[in-house]
Amino acid sequence: MKCELLSIGTELLTGATLNTNVNYLSTELSAIGVDVHYHTTIGDNPKRLRECLDIAVNRVDCVIITGGLGPTQDDLTKETVASFFNMPLKRDDQQVKKLKKRFENSGYPLTENNFRQCDIPVGAAILDNSCGTAPGIHIEKNNVDVFMLPGVPREMKAMFTESVLPVLKSKSNQIVTSRYYNICDMGESQIENQLLDLIKQQTNPTIATYAGVEEVTVRITAGGTNAAEIKKLLDQTESVINERFGSRIFSRDRTTLSKTVGELLKAKGLSLSTAESCTGGQIAAALTAIPGISEVYETGFVTYSNNAKKTLLGVPSDILDTYGAVSHQTAEAMCQGLLERTGSDLAVSVTGIAGPGGGSEAKPVGLVYIGVADHQHKIIEKCRFNGDRHQIQRRSVNKAFAMLRNLIITHD
Amino acid sequence: MKCELLSIGTELLTGATLNTNVNYLSTELSAIGVDVHYHTTIGDNPKRLRECLDIAVNRVDCVIITGGLGPTQDDLTKETVASFFNMPLKRDDQQVKKLKKRFENSGYPLTENNFRQCDIPVGAAILDNSCGTAPGIHIEKNNVDVFMLPGVPREMKAMFTESVLPVLKSKSNQIVTSRYYNICDMGESQIENQLLDLIKQQTNPTIATYAGVEEVTVRITAGGTNAAEIKKLLDQTESVINERFGSRIFSRDRTTLSKTVGELLKAKGLSLSTAESCTGGQIAAALTAIPGISEVYETGFVTYSNNAKKTLLGVPSDILDTYGAVSHQTAEAMCQGLLERTGSDLAVSVTGIAGPGGGSEAKPVGLVYIGVADHQHKIIEKCRFNGDRHQIQRRSVNKAFAMLRNLIITHD
Repeated sequence: MKCELLSIGTELLTGATLNTNVNYLSTELSAIGVDVHYHTTIGDNPKRLRECLDIAVNRVDCVIITGGLGPTQDDLTKETVASFFNMPLKRDDQQVKKLKKRFENSGYPLTENNFRQCDIPVGAAILDNSCGTAPGIHIEKNNVDVFMLPGVPREMKAMFTESVLPVLKSKSNQIVTSRYYNICDMGESQIENQLLDLIKQQTNPTIATYAGVEEVTVRITAGGTNAAEIKKLLDQTESVINERFGSRIFSRDRTTLSKTVGELLKAKGLSLSTAESCTGGQIAAALTAIPGISEVYETGFVTYSNNAKKTLLGVPSDILDTYGAVSHQTAEAMCQGLLERTGSDLAVSVTGIAGPGGGSEAKPVGLVYIGVADHQHKIIEKCRFNGDRHQIQRRSVNKAFAMLRNLIITHD
Repeated sequence: MKCELLSIGTELLTGATLNTNVNYLSTELSAIGVDVHYHTTIGDNPKRLRECLDIAVNRVDCVIITGGLGPTQDDLTKETVASFFNMPLKRDDQQVKKLKKRFENSGYPLTENNFRQCDIPVGAAILDNSCGTAPGIHIEKNNVDVFMLPGVPREMKAMFTESVLPVLKSKSNQIVTSRYYNICDMGESQIENQLLDLIKQQTNPTIATYAGVEEVTVRITAGGTNAAEIKKLLDQTESVINERFGSRIFSRDRTTLSKTVGELLKAKGLSLSTAESCTGGQIAAALTAIPGISEVYETGFVTYSNNAKKTLLGVPSDILDTYGAVSHQTAEAMCQGLLERTGSDLAVSVTGIAGPGGGSEAKPVGLVYIGVADHQHKIIEKCRFNGDRHQIQRRSVNKAFAMLRNLIITHD
């Protein structure tokens, strides 16, 4: 099935809003074997919507429109699409009832404009909106499926998952199954290089890599008419992936790296403290983004200066004087200080040069020492990261989480 | 001038890469008065590129193509566009010389494939690539301007600024000027509400709001043929904006809020320490993203537990017992402890409930106390933020920076 994504919204054309909807939909559609051939974006403009719809229905089998379904004067998607297909609009009693109930509960006034959302093209199917007021619409005409979804990402995603995915899956006589492997401690190009032979010969399963903030995701997707055959195809490719990436695969359900580490800590009941120099609180921020992390994460330090390292973590002056703040010894002493002063089970420390200034020939920008420790082990790694300040900080954080994960897994 | 942005890259259609290029280009083009009417995205597919190019040159005056200019087999943009316009390709000696020199310096091997980047459509203009190897191309045919730029954002942005903007500006007999106002301590909808009358009657200048991570940017853009007249138009609108937002306007050159605060600290030579509970290191992370911040930012604490607040910051037990960790008194004591223990000039503290768990009727999710202090003043604000955990943390961070800015400005 060939698909076009048609995004409606002047805010996308002025740059006020980044179009994350097409990214989400493309990812999800690829995973069920739908080929996205085009993304098209236009403003809140009926003339150009008709024009682009005319182009779309003549080149793909499925058009997913997002945006322009709301209650304001700008929102003209439904009216324009209905008129394009010569379908009259009729107010739907069920939708009116739902809308009234929703507004009763909210306490907001229900204006006439809001009822426009209850007008449905005669002959179209209604897609329930579990997160908002505007229902979605599904029209089937001349062997083309047209879906209209809200532009608000949260509403769009829920409606897509609940109402569009099942329809698309039922349309296909193919079964398409995807599996995901989240990999840490390796860059995207390194991972791609290791998969190059598979990527080059890919037909079924297909392979794709996605670079996230904390990790790289490898997705394999196989299609066919026989579930057992698909399983076999996926199993074969999976065994190659397992062999090549081994324990670097930290999740198979798309859980992020920091969340995986947080869940491991909670599951094992291990407490953690952090001391960050060049990552300046980014490890702490990633941990505390996880709901309920306070069970295991109590204390973090951002120790930029030598003085802070001494007074807060007890790093001895002679270590700082002899080896410098960016050294194996300092990273180790930071871990030691954390364990002693916070009483936590585990510690992680980072000290390095994120740049752009502060580098030297002996200690260049990108040199980072990362330490993880429990009361039996201390593991310190010397890393050389490329990139700008932001990238060096990001890579340091991800490396620290990868090292922490290893420590927790082996902790007894 | 009407413009279409045509993005090339299969990675965009599978969702592997988020298309940030169109967002950047749309923002910059709007600011010089170019109307972006369409975004179109296709894969590395010559047939569909021809098809979309044919549509584009018949509906706009300017097509900006990004992606597909590199040295690999997938990169077919230049060949396809040249063939569409019946322009033969010719290897450019200057470009070959440049490429050789670049590779000499890099130490990488220069393969035959790389030389394809030096093939230029006869009659086209070369756009210099100051950040990479693939030059851009500018073709003018039948009153349509077609620009081909690299897909790598850093290279694309440099080429757009250096080579495309001047051409587009010179094409117009209009002068278009934009001014920017970065506003803190107010949400986007609040700001839009205050500008509703201006937005509704907007013709010249036009007004747009952009919600960033840390702040909202208001842009006003005026066009005309007379620079003095444009200045007058902008001055009029600016005076309204100044009046309505006053000291909440913290920058007029698009500098972000945390950077503004960092620069203020450096300029005044004031040192800062931070103590974060529910924002868990996000203030520290924002500060340490700024190069050179170590001059003024030495120490940060992430004190999630009561115990950490007591031992690290010296918050008295009876304050925690009587008022609780999320209270005016605790936020104040955290600031006090920071000033005493770190010796810094300024302190900021955050304690609150980011959720989703941990809320109660008396202290609901979203309740956050933020304190800023110097050795003379302590200012504590009680805030109620809406949203999920991520949004509550983000809003707390931004509020803390807004309060810090006020404190620094008034500090003597």
